[in-house]
This record gives sequence, C-alpha cells and structure tokens, in this order.
Amino acid sequence: MTAHDAPARAASIAPTVGLWFVGARGAIATTATFGLAALASGRAEPIGLVSALPAFAGLGLVPLANLVVGGWEVREGSLAAAAAELVANGILPAHVVEAGAEHARAVDARIVPGTTTRKDAAATPTARARSAATGREQVRALVADLAHFRATTGVARVVVVNVASTEAAVEPPPAARDVAAFERALDDGSELPPSTLYAYAALSAGCAHVNFTPSAGATWPALRAFAKTRGLPIAGDDGKTGETLVKTALAPMFAHRNLRVLTWQGYNMLGNHDGEVLADPAHKSAKLRNKDAALRSILVDSPGLHSHVGIDYVPSLHDWKTAWDFVHFEGFLGTRMSLQFTWVGSDSALAAPLVLDLVRFAELALRDGAVGELAHLACFFKAPLAGGSHDFHVQAAGLLDFAARRSRP
Amino acid sequence: MTAHDAPARAASIAPTVGLWFVGARGAIATTATFGLAALASGRAEPIGLVSALPAFAGLGLVPLANLVVGGWEVREGSLAAAAAELVANGILPAHVVEAGAEHARAVDARIVPGTTTRKDAAATPTARARSAATGREQVRALVADLAHFRATTGVARVVVVNVASTEAAVEPPPAARDVAAFERALDDGSELPPSTLYAYAALSAGCAHVNFTPSAGATWPALRAFAKTRGLPIAGDDGKTGETLVKTALAPMFAHRNLRVLTWQGYNMLGNHDGEVLADPAHKSAKLRNKDAALRSILVDSPGLHSHVGIDYVPSLHDWKTAWDFVHFEGFLGTRMSLQFTWVGSDSALAAPLVLDLVRFAELALRDGAVGELAHLACFFKAPLAGGSHDFHVQAAGLLDFAARRSRP
Amino acid sequence: MTAHDAPARAASIAPTVGLWFVGARGAIATTATFGLAALASGRAEPIGLVSALPAFAGLGLVPLANLVVGGWEVREGSLAAAAAELVANGILPAHVVEAGAEHARAVDARIVPGTTTRKDAAATPTARARSAATGREQVRALVADLAHFRATTGVARVVVVNVASTEAAVEPPPAARDVAAFERALDDGSELPPSTLYAYAALSAGCAHVNFTPSAGATWPALRAFAKTRGLPIAGDDGKTGETLVKTALAPMFAHRNLRVLTWQGYNMLGNHDGEVLADPAHKSAKLRNKDAALRSILVDSPGLHSHVGIDYVPSLHDWKTAWDFVHFEGFLGTRMSLQFTWVGSDSALAAPLVLDLVRFAELALRDGAVGELAHLACFFKAPLAGGSHDFHVQAAGLLDFAARRSRP
Amino acid sequence: MTAHDAPARAASIAPTVGLWFVGARGAIATTATFGLAALASGRAEPIGLVSALPAFAGLGLVPLANLVVGGWEVREGSLAAAAAELVANGILPAHVVEAGAEHARAVDARIVPGTTTRKDAAATPTARARSAATGREQVRALVADLAHFRATTGVARVVVVNVASTEAAVEPPPAARDVAAFERALDDGSELPPSTLYAYAALSAGCAHVNFTPSAGATWPALRAFAKTRGLPIAGDDGKTGETLVKTALAPMFAHRNLRVLTWQGYNMLGNHDGEVLADPAHKSAKLRNKDAALRSILVDSPGLHSHVGIDYVPSLHDWKTAWDFVHFEGFLGTRMSLQFTWVGSDSALAAPLVLDLVRFAELALRDGAVGELAHLACFFKAPLAGGSHDFHVQAAGLLDFAARRSRP
Repeated sequence: MTAHDAPARAASIAPTVGLWFVGARGAIATTATFGLAALASGRAEPIGLVSALPAFAGLGLVPLANLVVGGWEVREGSLAAAAAELVANGILPAHVVEAGAEHARAVDARIVPGTTTRKDAAATPTARARSAATGREQVRALVADLAHFRATTGVARVVVVNVASTEAAVEPPPAARDVAAFERALDDGSELPPSTLYAYAALSAGCAHVNFTPSAGATWPALRAFAKTRGLPIAGDDGKTGETLVKTALAPMFAHRNLRVLTWQGYNMLGNHDGEVLADPAHKSAKLRNKDAALRSILVDSPGLHSHVGIDYVPSLHDWKTAWDFVHFEGFLGTRMSLQFTWVGSDSALAAPLVLDLVRFAELALRDGAVGELAHLACFFKAPLAGGSHDFHVQAAGLLDFAARRSRP
Repeated sequence: MTAHDAPARAASIAPTVGLWFVGARGAIATTATFGLAALASGRAEPIGLVSALPAFAGLGLVPLANLVVGGWEVREGSLAAAAAELVANGILPAHVVEAGAEHARAVDARIVPGTTTRKDAAATPTARARSAATGREQVRALVADLAHFRATTGVARVVVVNVASTEAAVEPPPAARDVAAFERALDDGSELPPSTLYAYAALSAGCAHVNFTPSAGATWPALRAFAKTRGLPIAGDDGKTGETLVKTALAPMFAHRNLRVLTWQGYNMLGNHDGEVLADPAHKSAKLRNKDAALRSILVDSPGLHSHVGIDYVPSLHDWKTAWDFVHFEGFLGTRMSLQFTWVGSDSALAAPLVLDLVRFAELALRDGAVGELAHLACFFKAPLAGGSHDFHVQAAGLLDFAARRSRP
Repeated sequence: MTAHDAPARAASIAPTVGLWFVGARGAIATTATFGLAALASGRAEPIGLVSALPAFAGLGLVPLANLVVGGWEVREGSLAAAAAELVANGILPAHVVEAGAEHARAVDARIVPGTTTRKDAAATPTARARSAATGREQVRALVADLAHFRATTGVARVVVVNVASTEAAVEPPPAARDVAAFERALDDGSELPPSTLYAYAALSAGCAHVNFTPSAGATWPALRAFAKTRGLPIAGDDGKTGETLVKTALAPMFAHRNLRVLTWQGYNMLGNHDGEVLADPAHKSAKLRNKDAALRSILVDSPGLHSHVGIDYVPSLHDWKTAWDFVHFEGFLGTRMSLQFTWVGSDSALAAPLVLDLVRFAELALRDGAVGELAHLACFFKAPLAGGSHDFHVQAAGLLDFAARRSRP
Repeated sequence: MTAHDAPARAASIAPTVGLWFVGARGAIATTATFGLAALASGRAEPIGLVSALPAFAGLGLVPLANLVVGGWEVREGSLAAAAAELVANGILPAHVVEAGAEHARAVDARIVPGTTTRKDAAATPTARARSAATGREQVRALVADLAHFRATTGVARVVVVNVASTEAAVEPPPAARDVAAFERALDDGSELPPSTLYAYAALSAGCAHVNFTPSAGATWPALRAFAKTRGLPIAGDDGKTGETLVKTALAPMFAHRNLRVLTWQGYNMLGNHDGEVLADPAHKSAKLRNKDAALRSILVDSPGLHSHVGIDYVPSLHDWKTAWDFVHFEGFLGTRMSLQFTWVGSDSALAAPLVLDLVRFAELALRDGAVGELAHLACFFKAPLAGGSHDFHVQAAGLLDFAARRSRP
C-alpha cells in the first residue's frame, strides 16, 4: 500500500462538486485543471496533495474525479495555450497535456470573463467593463455566472478559489468595516478591489470562498461578517507554497533550541506572470508583509531580529521560483553561526495540489455547515484568516487533529 | 522580560548537583565548564539553553550556579589549554576564558584519569592501564572516583554525561544481552567498550547517565535493565546538534505536504578531534547510522528514497562543522524540485548548552524517582533511547507536554 | 550580428568529414548527433560551441553540416531510444528529437558493434566477443569498420572521438612503454583496455584521435609514439565540462591574489550511466585523479592544501550533474574566509558541443599535418595530453593565440 | 622557499615612503596599519598581498617596513578603538593588535582632521568646517598637512590612498570638465565632493593618488588632466575585493565556452560602517554601477542578459560581507543550467593588503616617472581608470607582463 488514495474509483454515483476559479487560465489553475484529468484517469499519482495522505482517508472528502471546473478569467487565451507555455518551461509533462486536452476544452467552455479595476480595464479588453457599472451591477453578473454554472453542471456545492494575480495592496477603506458600509460602496460607484467583489459574489451565491492570494478577498471585516451572516465557510490568505513554507518549518527549530536569530534575509526570484505583477512595488508589498509577519511571530524570543524579504522578477526562471535565505544566529556564549538554503521549486506544481486540497476541505466544511474562518486549514496559508500560530508543525498538527476528531464515528 | 531565566539568583542555599563528564577536557566539556562560570556570574545570557526557555521556568530545575563539575579524561592537559585552542578558533570568547580561569582550575582539580581500550592504552599514557585489569576492577576504581567526588563536594545528586570521542562501532557481544551476562564479562577479562564501563559504574554509584555520543554507553539491553534494577534514569544517544537537527526539522515538512523525497544527500565536514576520530571508518559508522535512520523514519511515505550521509575530516575547519545537504524531491505530476542548505555551526557551542540542559532535566528525574529511558528528552538525541518519532517538532512538543504536566501544582 | 557563425551556409561543395564515436549511442554522442541535425538545419543556435565564437571564424573549420557521423557501440538500442530518455529527463527538447529522427536513423545505420573486456563481454552481448580474439584480431576488425565508413560515405578525413563510459583504472602495464611492446601484447593475447585498442585502430586507419574520457585511450607512451610514427594528431584526456571547469576558472583567482587555500572539497553527484559506472571505485579513481591534479597544479603556492573530490551516484538526477564545492582560504593576518558554489549542469549538454569543437579543431590539424599531442586544445581537457597549465584562462588564451597565428594570411 | 618575500629584512637604509590615508581610522586603514606592524616585525606572513608573490620580487618595490603611515580622518576616535571593534568581530587577531599598539599610537599622532560636505559637517564635528571655507582654502589646508607630514617624517615620496566611506553619487558638474573649470569652482565657493578636493590636494603636493572607493576622487577629466600636468601617476577606482572579483573571474569562463548567460543576480550583505553608508540609495548607486558594468563588458556575447546587483545592510555581519550570486545560463540546444555561489569574506582583510600593494606599485610609478592612469593596475579595481578589459585573468596577466618588462635589466 502506498501513501495515496485512489481518486478515480467508484466516484460515479457520488454528487459532483464545483471548483470555480478566479483566474481560471493562470498557471496554477491550468496546472490544477490538467492535473485533475491526469489524477482522475489514474495516469498520475496524487503526489503533493495533502488530502491524499492516509491520515485523511476517513474524512469522506469529495473524490477528485467528482470535481467540475469552471471560472472567471480576464485575459484572453485557452487552457491549451496556457499549458503549452508550462510544457515549454518544464512544469507540465507533455503527455499530461495531450491526454487532458479534451477535459481542458470542456473546462474552457465553462470559463467566463471576470472583472477588473477601471485602471486595468484597458489592458484586459476581454474583461467585463468596470467603468460602465457599479460594484452592485458587477456582483449581480458574477452571481449569475455561478448560478449558470450550477444549473448547467448540476454540481451539489461550489467552492470559489482565488488564484488570480496579486492585486495592488490598498489600505482598507471605510467600506471594509462592516457589511452595511460595503454594500453602500457597492451601490455608490466606489472602486472596490475585484477580489472583494468576487468574494462577495461567491458568498451571495452560497459558495465557500478560498483566497490563495494575498489580495483582499474576504479578509475585510465586512466580508468575514458577511460569510457568517450567510452561514458559509471561508479560508485564506496567500498559499504557503515555497520559501515561506520552509521558513515556518525551520524557524521553530531555532525557537525551541533557544538560539537567537539575529538576521533572516530572504531573496526570492520569480519569472512567471505573478513575478511580473510583483515587480510592481504596490503589488509586492502585500506579499512581503505576509512573508515577514510569519517569521516574526515564530521568533518572538529573538529580540532585535533583522529580517528582509525581497522578490525580484527574473524572466529566465519562468515558473521556477528560486529563493535563497540566509539565517545568522547566535548560540552559546555569543558564538555566531549561519544556515543558508536555496529552494528551487515550480510555483504552479507546488500550488496546484494545495488548491485541490483546499477545495476538498472547504467542500467538507460546506457539508458540515461550518461557518466563518476555517482554523484547521492554517497550514495552507501565509496569513491564516483565523490567526493562530505560524509554526508549520503546529498548523499541520492542527489539521491532523481536525481529521482525527472529524473521522470519529 | 526576556526568554531567559536568571541562573545565578538565590541559588546559594539550594543543594548542589554534580555534573561528572566522561571526556572532561574535550571541546564540549571545556565549553560547558567555562560557559557555566560565565552564566553563573551573569556575564553571559543563557542563549542556546533549552531549559532557560520560559516554558520550563515552573519545573524547579537546578540553578546552573549550583552545578559542580568534575569528570574523567584520558588525555593529558588542562582546561586552560583546551580553552586556548577554542579561543584561537573563535569558539570561546577570550574574555569568557579569562574570567573563568579560577573556576576552571577548581574543576581541573576534580578531573581524574579515565579508562580506555587496550588498543588505545599506548596512545593515552595518562589513562588507567586497561591491560592490567578486568572490567570489574576498572568499574571499582570508577565507582570510587564518583564516591570521592560526592564526599569532597557534598553534591546531593550526580549526573554522568558521556561527551568523549566516539568509540569504534562494535556489534553487541553476548555480554550485551542481560545484566548477568554483562557482569560475567566484567569478571572474565573480556574487552568491553569503555563507554559501557563508565555507564555501569555511574549506575552502580547511583548516578543518572546521559550518553551524548553514539558510543554504546547504556544502550545495551544489559545496561538498560541494570538502570531499572537500580531505579535510575538514563538518556541518550548521540546529541542532535547540527545537520541532523536541521534534517529532522525539515523532513516532516516534505512528509506533511506529501512531497516525495527522491534523494537526500548530506555531506558533513568537521575538523576538531571528533572529526579526526570519525575519519576512521569504524568510528564513523555509528554516527552515520543514527543520522540516516532518523531521516528514513520520518520519510516513510517516500518509497525508494536514496540517501547518503558522509563525514569528512577537514582540519582547517577545527570546531566549525560545515554541512551541505541536497534534497531532490518530486511534486505534483512528477515535477522535480530541490532544496539545499549549508549549515555552519560550532559543534561545541551547539552541544555544550544542551549538555547543561540534559543535566538539569536528568537531575529532576533523579529527584522525581523516574526510572529507565527518559522519553521526554527525545528532542536532544539522534537516536533516542526510548524510541518514538524522530520528527523534531513532535519531540519538542513532547518536552513541552512534559513540562506542562510536571509543572502543575 | 551575433557571436555565432552560420554552420549550414554554403557547405555543400566542401568535402565532408567523418566523426566516428567510441560509444555512439551514449548520452554525449546522442546529444551531439541530434544537435548536429538541429544546427545544420538552422533550428538551433550554436550555443555552447567554442568553435562558433567570432575569434575562430577565420580558421576555415569544417562546417558542422559537413560532418558525417558513425561509430562503435557495445550496448543494444537505437539513437531514438537513447534520445527518448534524454527528452524525458529534460536534456534534449522533444522538437529537436522529432526533427532529427531521419538524420538519426541514417547515423544508426552507420553504428557497428564495438569491443569490450572479457569481463564485460557477458554483460554486453552485442559487443564483439573478446574472448575469441587477440587484440590484433580486434584491431583488424576495427580498422575494417573505419575503412568501410570511409568507403561508403566518401569522407575526406576522419576523427575518432572516445565518449564511452570510463574504464576501470589500471596501472600502465609493460605494454604501455613503447610501440613494440604494445604490438607484442596485441599478438600474445594479453588483455588490453578497449580504449587503447580503439586508439591504436584509429591511428592505424589514419584518423585523428580525441579522448574525451579519463580512460587510457592514447595516453600511454606506446600510443603517443605510434601517433608520431603515423604522423597523426591526438588530443585528450577527459573533457573539462563542469565542476573541474569552474575549479580551474576560480582557483587562479586565489593564486593571483596570494590567498592561501586551506581546503577545497568537491562533492559531485551524477545519475546517468556514467554515474553508475563511476559508482565502482575502480572506475572512479581515474576521474578523481584528474580532478584533483588540476587543482593542485594551480595552487602550488598554497602549501598544505587539503583537497578532496567525491563522486556519488544519485539516480534521481539522471544527466543533471550537481556539484557542491567548498573552498576555505586564509587571507591577511590569518583571517579565514570561504567560497562555496553549487553547479547544476546537464553533463551531455555541456559535453556534446565541445566534442563537435574538438572534431573541427582535430580535422584542421589533420589538414595542417600537425603531429602528436595538440597543445592548443588544452582548455577542453581535465588532463591535457601535452601538459601545460591547468589554469583555464591560460588555456583559453592559448587557443585564442593559436587562432590568431593560424588565421594570419 | 615560500611564495612570500621577507618585508622586514635590511630595509633600514632604504628611503622611507609615506602612505597617507583618506579615512585613516576606517576598517581598511586600521587593518592595514596594524598589519604593517605585524608584517614588518615578522609576526605575520604576507598572505593576501599580491606584491609579495615571487613574480614581483625583481621590481624593487619599497619594503613594507619602510612605509610611514598618516592620514586624514573626519571621525573622532583612535586606531586602538577601531581595532578593538575589529577584534570583537573576528577580523583582527587580538595578538596582532596588542603587538602593534605602539606603532598605532605613532600613526594616530600623524592623523589629522579631514574635510567633509557642508551637509555632513554637523554630524562630524571633528572635521574641518566646510561652511567657513571655499574649496581653495580647504585644499590649501590639506596641502599643508601633506607638507608637514613630509617634513616631519622625511619620507622620500608619498602615496595618497582614498579608503573613506563611499560618497553620495553625483552627476559630474561643469567643474568636472577641465582643470580651469575645476579651479574656478575651487574659488567661487561651489560645493565639490570631498574626494576630489583630497585628490587635487594630493596631486598639488606631488603625491601619487589611488582611489580605492567608487567616489569621484581623480576620476573627473579635470583631475586626470591635472595629474598629467603635474606629471604624477593615478590609479583607481573602487577596489575589487569580493563578489566582483569572483564575478570577473567566473564570467570569462562562460564567455569562452560560448554559454549564454541569461541572468546574473548578485545579492550582497554587509554590516560595517561602509554597509551603513551604502544603505543610503544615493551612496549605493555608484557601487552598483561599477559592479554591473564589469559583468556586462565581459558577457557581451550574451544578448538579453538580465542582471541585478543588490546591497543590503545587515548589522549582525559587521565586516563579514556575505554575497550570494545566481547565474542562470543556456547551453547546447537551449538547455538551462545554473551556478550559484556564496562568498563569505572579511571586507577589511581582503582590502587592506591590496591597499599596501597599490602603495608599493604607485610608489614605483612615482620613481619611474609614470604619468596619468596606471593601466597595469587594472586587476585591483572594479572600474579601472585606464579602462581595458574587466576580465580578471586578462588584468592579472597585464600586471605580470608589466613585472616581466620592468624587471628586465
């Protein structure tokens, strides 16, 4: 026996579940979509899927073969074209893309235009025009998209997952404070971050909402409250896939050994579309904040910690995120030592299975009637909505505890 | 308030505790001895001491100022000479050695010749001659050393800690099986590993025994049983100070993310006396076995794992252990990624505070009447005597749990 | 204008040149063969080819499109099968292999069985049986292969290049001493390393001989003398493609700055067939000797240099050689500093273009009537046959000097 | 015989030479000053001194024992205090500082206040007040300092070396254009960079001028022309001590192998006073420009090269500059490979011996009557004043050629 479940078996009579992407033809969604086809057909093992570990076998998670994919996308193109770029850069194997071509065409047919800011509208002509509409009108159209998806596919429940490029960071406006304020802003023509409109629409349509990015999503008090009002679960923010994952796995070691971390410098290089967007300082700041906060919360006993996180756009790397971290620490009698690591990972290959995990866990929450921030999913995020420890091992133990409790008869 | 306790305060009326080293002028013992002086006088903060973390403040551990140091040593020299070498190599600060000179002279007066194998006897003329004596006679002399230490210092309890150079690995002989067999071998002139004689003597004298090395120590069933017969606690084996610590902190991350580790290569370079001894393949094998076993037990879900651990003697590094690890792993859809790290740490500066921690925890166990392998100390060892998970975070949580339970009124 | 020549242009009327591989379906030869097709058709740029640099444009080197490939191979299979493995491991792009399929089939038709040792004969059933034949009979057959290649292709000149797996290192036997002794061994049934038989056959057939491996090849005095007798050029040994290239580019920096290198540790990991062969200590020793000697000759002013070169077989890496080097050095007033590097390179992608370079330079030597070891090709080898500096920059300057002198009207 | 000369021997009757620092109590000057004492007394070997290599033995360079040190400094303090900080950070050995104490006190007595910008005057109260004076008046005072140094020490020749902290980068003003324009600016109260005033004063006083920093120094056409008018040699700019040295030693390897460098990212971390100054973007830009230009000039055949150089201030590192470079390159058939290196070096220990080298070579140039930019010293600088190749090996060969030519009888 291996560590993996058998996703495709005997899934035919179980109800299907909708996976609705924000950013449905981005690298993560494309990888997840083709990956689903490969997993459902048994051509790939579920490596990288947390939910496929034996510990979660008793939860009755939705089989991967029962997921029906659709979503919003503001850029033109097709899943095939997006996949071709990933094949060229060594992320997706050519045979997976070939075998999944038909599946991808079916998904493509369920991808509809998304919304964008007025500023970006010119650059993304295929998106719904924001200038002509209030937030309320946008939301109405987005809700209609979800209703149509439900109606045409017959999915029992829908999880909306934001994997779109990071938005520019903004200070939460007054509209962020409570539901009433947010709804006034929907009506009065205020400019609201697209991620919040998607989140509001998802919750309005009775979907669970997962924010895999550092964008606002359902983070604002207004939207957290709205999720509770609607009796729906939310999870986020910002998938913990690479350097931050390693950081939050390593930093507790220093803390428990009472070694004083003097400096933790992290340099990230990224060359895909996400990297290009992050080259813009406004977009970068949200990401960096989450990366640094996680570290500082673990190393509270290292007073005077000097830390730095950089992200540089390096086109030749494409999706291959390469990060170098340097940790300078002090031990017994002031002796100074160091640890450095280099991480070379495909951002999409790391993120895609976690997105599938989150859909499965969020769908279970929908079935269980769980409401609000799902604390047991903290291990997936750089900035867990429900707060709690950033220590990856504490978070992972939390998910295992949840599974143990939930699996009991 | 900081994360550290105040070792020196109000320790005067509490009973003193003996810390008796096997290898009392080696780099670890020398660092610990001078470090104790610096901590007791408040000239250094207890960085690197686990037992100084707030979580352990309620345990009533013996104050560091109450530790009285002595021990066995087979090589000639003085603590001052050993310290001078450590100062030259940037391990011990010159001011710590100067300030601790008087304290070190007092300890030096309590260091007595140890025992060695017949083979090594010629090379270490100051050691008690093994050729002239049976194991029983050796033990008798060692027990007398401990009795004299108790009598002259008035310490309430004694913890014996093995920090001597790693012995050549041997297959456990028949004498290892049970107490009777071991005692027969003591009498019939069989050659037994010195570390087992030290352990037997320590337990005979009513001391707790901690094995910070991969040598046999109290690992054999015979000695474990003897500890139980004598109603004494033991802990070991092989301090988890550097590369293995990082390994067992990182490997669980791969396991929990269901990433398949294909290869884990670890290259260790070391230039101190321990490195010189490990250059001998027989001595090296014990160390390598522990390093590799820890990894494999965590990565059970990575079938086909290819792993390698090398240790090379690099004189120019002296005590600065430098290790490079390369982890090749497979993620979603077969995508291959890598993590590599370089660890540069002073072996002695990492080990010394852990040795002090172990003495404090073992002394508490003596007071509590704990018997046999102390499972809650697993986080300190590469090959915990009580078995259990090698996952550093699970081990660390185990120690915290112990502290929480023990601290309750 | 770019730094590259246009290999395909106007090559039709020039005479063709034979490139005859020892190991014609190994990873290097396969990469070179498909690469030739891609370069000749203009589908690839000559990146990685030294001979394509502007500095060599005036030499009248044979156009790549004029090379006709054939060779010896002891293993079964086809270039297509060998290429498929390289595609799977990300060395050869799929489109290059598809486009070169016809070219590869033509080359496959010119690949004939090679020779092997008696010991290896059982493992390689397709090889010419050694047990049944003296060296002389083997050589006769090999010479006939070359004659048939010339006759059927009409090539003007032939360069034989050894890219077969490294042979077990042997102490040069008496037969190595001079031509007469070697020829006696050919006749008396002595076991001679296959690489020397190939070299003797190549020279007997009037071909230039290039040894890209650390095997004996034409290294022995007997074969060097034979080349001179035959008036033919030879070059070798052991292609300088990866870690040693970096080493010999970096070490001169320390020498010129008068920094004392204390330690240079090099750890190589390799997963292809070559790595498998090198896992055998006998095969490894030849390689390691060359790697270490190069370093020591550059760092003559670092007395007491401690150096180590390791090679480990890491199957998951396939052709992706990954090396970590650690350099510990001493500067002003004894200050100790370090440089470490990690090299991740495809062995075949690095070697293949150099092999094509060597064929072009060796063919020019044949035309020029150059005899014996070609000193100006030192920059291509770990152990240059003509000796001289191992400093890569001195070697590279030597090749540029040759080009400048040779290009003059 | 070793690679080193014997600086102290038989130097007593030879004339003495003045080494006059700009920034005489900075880390570099302090290290050089104490190092001189150690070398002159034979307590240290001349490791790290290029001029001590056998190749330069025939040049008749001034013995190190004949150098008499003085200089300008704008900060308060003493060499002893500066050295204590370097001892604490493991740069200078304690015994070197103790043994050199008397020598340092004598040098301290020859250190006089320097000049600074109006903006910095408040922060450096010990500097000569700029606000009260024109450039001309400043220069007059500086020239008087040099005259007094000559008169009181009897040195035959003086070399002025700028090792002060990097100035804020400025666009060359009109005053930079020619001597007349510069001298007008001296008189009309214009603010000129202190480094140019020091350079003008040095040349006015008949000294050679070496600029080891990226500050303006004698870079401007006005000052280069002035050097020629005065018949004096100059050398600079910006000492090539660490990451750039490695870069310019490695980059030629890629160029000669016709490997296309796609990306070269360099991350530098530095914690000493220089790092603090460079944390200011204006000061940083000069340094980064030199680092990047060197790389680009070597990799001209890598069109589309993406490069980045970052410098971050990391206080815990003090003088230990730690740099990580990542090189992503393309080889045969588009295969992408990488090289990364980590450099850990003491900035002062690397720079100090080169400064002594430059004084010796510049003094020889003074004796030889060499005028203007000294092209043979290019290997010492990131931005050689005389231009030419940035390839370290070409530069090093240039210095060896000079030595060979100059040494001939």
